[in-house]
Amino acid sequence: MRTTLCDKLGIQHPIVGFTPSEHVAAEISRAGGLGVLGCVRFNDADELDSVLDWMDRNTDGKPYGVDIVMPAKIPTEGTSVDLDKLIPPEHRAFVRRTLEELGVPELPDEQRRNSGVLGWLHSVARSHVDVALRHPVRLVANALGSPPVDVIEQVHQHGIPVAALAGKGEHARRHVDNGVDIVVAQGHEAGGHTGEIATMVLVPEIVDAVGHRVPVLAAGGIGSGRQVAAALALGASGAWMGSYWLTTSEYKMTAGDTATQRALLSAGSSDTVRSRIYTGKPARLLKTRWTEAWQQPDAPEPLPMPLQNILVSEAHERITRSGDPEVVSMPVGQIVGRMNEVRPVADVFADLLTELDETLDHLDKLRESR
Amino acid sequence: MRTTLCDKLGIQHPIVGFTPSEHVAAEISRAGGLGVLGCVRFNDADELDSVLDWMDRNTDGKPYGVDIVMPAKIPTEGTSVDLDKLIPPEHRAFVRRTLEELGVPELPDEQRRNSGVLGWLHSVARSHVDVALRHPVRLVANALGSPPVDVIEQVHQHGIPVAALAGKGEHARRHVDNGVDIVVAQGHEAGGHTGEIATMVLVPEIVDAVGHRVPVLAAGGIGSGRQVAAALALGASGAWMGSYWLTTSEYKMTAGDTATQRALLSAGSSDTVRSRIYTGKPARLLKTRWTEAWQQPDAPEPLPMPLQNILVSEAHERITRSGDPEVVSMPVGQIVGRMNEVRPVADVFADLLTELDETLDHLDKLRESR
Repeated sequence: MRTTLCDKLGIQHPIVGFTPSEHVAAEISRAGGLGVLGCVRFNDADELDSVLDWMDRNTDGKPYGVDIVMPAKIPTEGTSVDLDKLIPPEHRAFVRRTLEELGVPELPDEQRRNSGVLGWLHSVARSHVDVALRHPVRLVANALGSPPVDVIEQVHQHGIPVAALAGKGEHARRHVDNGVDIVVAQGHEAGGHTGEIATMVLVPEIVDAVGHRVPVLAAGGIGSGRQVAAALALGASGAWMGSYWLTTSEYKMTAGDTATQRALLSAGSSDTVRSRIYTGKPARLLKTRWTEAWQQPDAPEPLPMPLQNILVSEAHERITRSGDPEVVSMPVGQIVGRMNEVRPVADVFADLLTELDETLDHLDKLRESR
Repeated sequence: MRTTLCDKLGIQHPIVGFTPSEHVAAEISRAGGLGVLGCVRFNDADELDSVLDWMDRNTDGKPYGVDIVMPAKIPTEGTSVDLDKLIPPEHRAFVRRTLEELGVPELPDEQRRNSGVLGWLHSVARSHVDVALRHPVRLVANALGSPPVDVIEQVHQHGIPVAALAGKGEHARRHVDNGVDIVVAQGHEAGGHTGEIATMVLVPEIVDAVGHRVPVLAAGGIGSGRQVAAALALGASGAWMGSYWLTTSEYKMTAGDTATQRALLSAGSSDTVRSRIYTGKPARLLKTRWTEAWQQPDAPEPLPMPLQNILVSEAHERITRSGDPEVVSMPVGQIVGRMNEVRPVADVFADLLTELDETLDHLDKLRESR
């Protein structure tokens, strides 16, 4: 199957896979989709550079992309020490108390000076773009909508398209007016940053708003060939999938954190919650004892981006090290209910294509029946 | 197009339309779908009886159904006077104060003794079933999941299938175990009572849970042929549509309330809110100054079903009479963003079928492209 998206990105199948793991991203590209590497975890652009070197060696020349996190409006900026001062002591006290109550051990001394995830900072995201453009990337996506216009221009100068997530028709229109080339219509059921409008309603709305100007990808709730077919029926040129790769064997290779995968494998589609506790903006997360603690009456309101992520970043490290599946902090969509075994990306990808084909067969048969 | 649903219900197209308006229901049936009349507004079973007589005369012998509202567990029962006593005075005071602040006039004296909507009561819903079974109905649907087993048996004795709404796979399984014949998978984006799982995720989940035993209908977010096609791609045997008929000419005929239609016509897909203020259970409503008042810090927690609806039923009458589009109280799904003009049911239905056909053509073409 060949959609406008395939032509634009030079890929074989209209499936784009977002993932923080280079191992997953490379496999998606090798399978004929577009692997998109999430850059937010790279505080140091040199580290991203080495990982992209690895991607270049391991994708057999197939196209891949990168995903940055850059608000169009430049938010609070500063070194991590400056920003630290903006975090209210009662927020810190709540995090400290909660981790203690949840039995999450402290970090060993040598890890304490970790500065948290800085990829949310504008300056750091810009360094990601600079580094990515030194590699043969085929897409720069921005998880927070349209990047600033000068960044779009910088990417375009390299002949590379820019994709942006949108949760409303009006956002999509603004993105395209800014120069964005591909819109990802991200429905309410998606993992990570997500709005209120569900994929079923959002995709045709965004297709009607900007589909005559740019290809639209459907995101949110996609983890089977039936759902890819539904996305195409809604008018999308392809599917953007993020959560579904978190239980692949290759993700395990990068993260090495089996508690998270165990938690994801046992979760049902009702076991997510949309909350501001991860980044300061509403994002869908796995429902765990950590997210529940933030819903108690004594919990403070989450801080704005980027402060909330700085507040909780040591907590995230402690939680990851603790290895307790009940206290995981992980963005994931409602599709988690369909993530029930650890499998290689190639197998997952092949099944998507097979079921997509079966679904189109099924629709053909329905159509011929009278 | 012919699905298992068409055979089960004797209809031509796999589209079921739920509506409180007999004029809309009759037109849907005449167009080749199944019109399903919502019974909750009939406090008096004799009134329902006359309306079904009208349906019998105006559907050209085409199949139609009814929708009752009956929790499987028997809730608080009693006359309206008994139940009135269970409503805390501070709730009444909040409603009184809010209506005053919103400028909603009081009812004329002769209307004051109206007893509110009693269709939520078990005894009243049972009387609806008794009356419906004296008519040639082809489906009894229950908006609150599986009805009690003796009601299912009563309906089956007349050779009529029972449909039940489900918002989770486990609910669907329980419904079918109880004898339910058709499951309506109602996603988060739907109007009225709705759960947290979006249609894109819920439909395949319910199809996988019970699709080998009964037909599954997709509900929530459907108002175009692309969305009907997506529902079929997800494995549904058809679409259940409710909100989309609220802006038809025939609905206007029944409701005669142009303020509600004006409010719906101007609303976008972000202008809904899921709240317990309508019935006591979470239901998606049009976002208006009324729903916003209930989200203020001074607002009380909504009461459980059936008390909440009794609490607000006079308010609903006052709001309807006031004719202010900004203070409407109306269940509607996110598809309201696509409801932008008043049109006859027959035109709406014809467009659904045309776009469904075009969508299947489009998928065929995509498939052939390499």
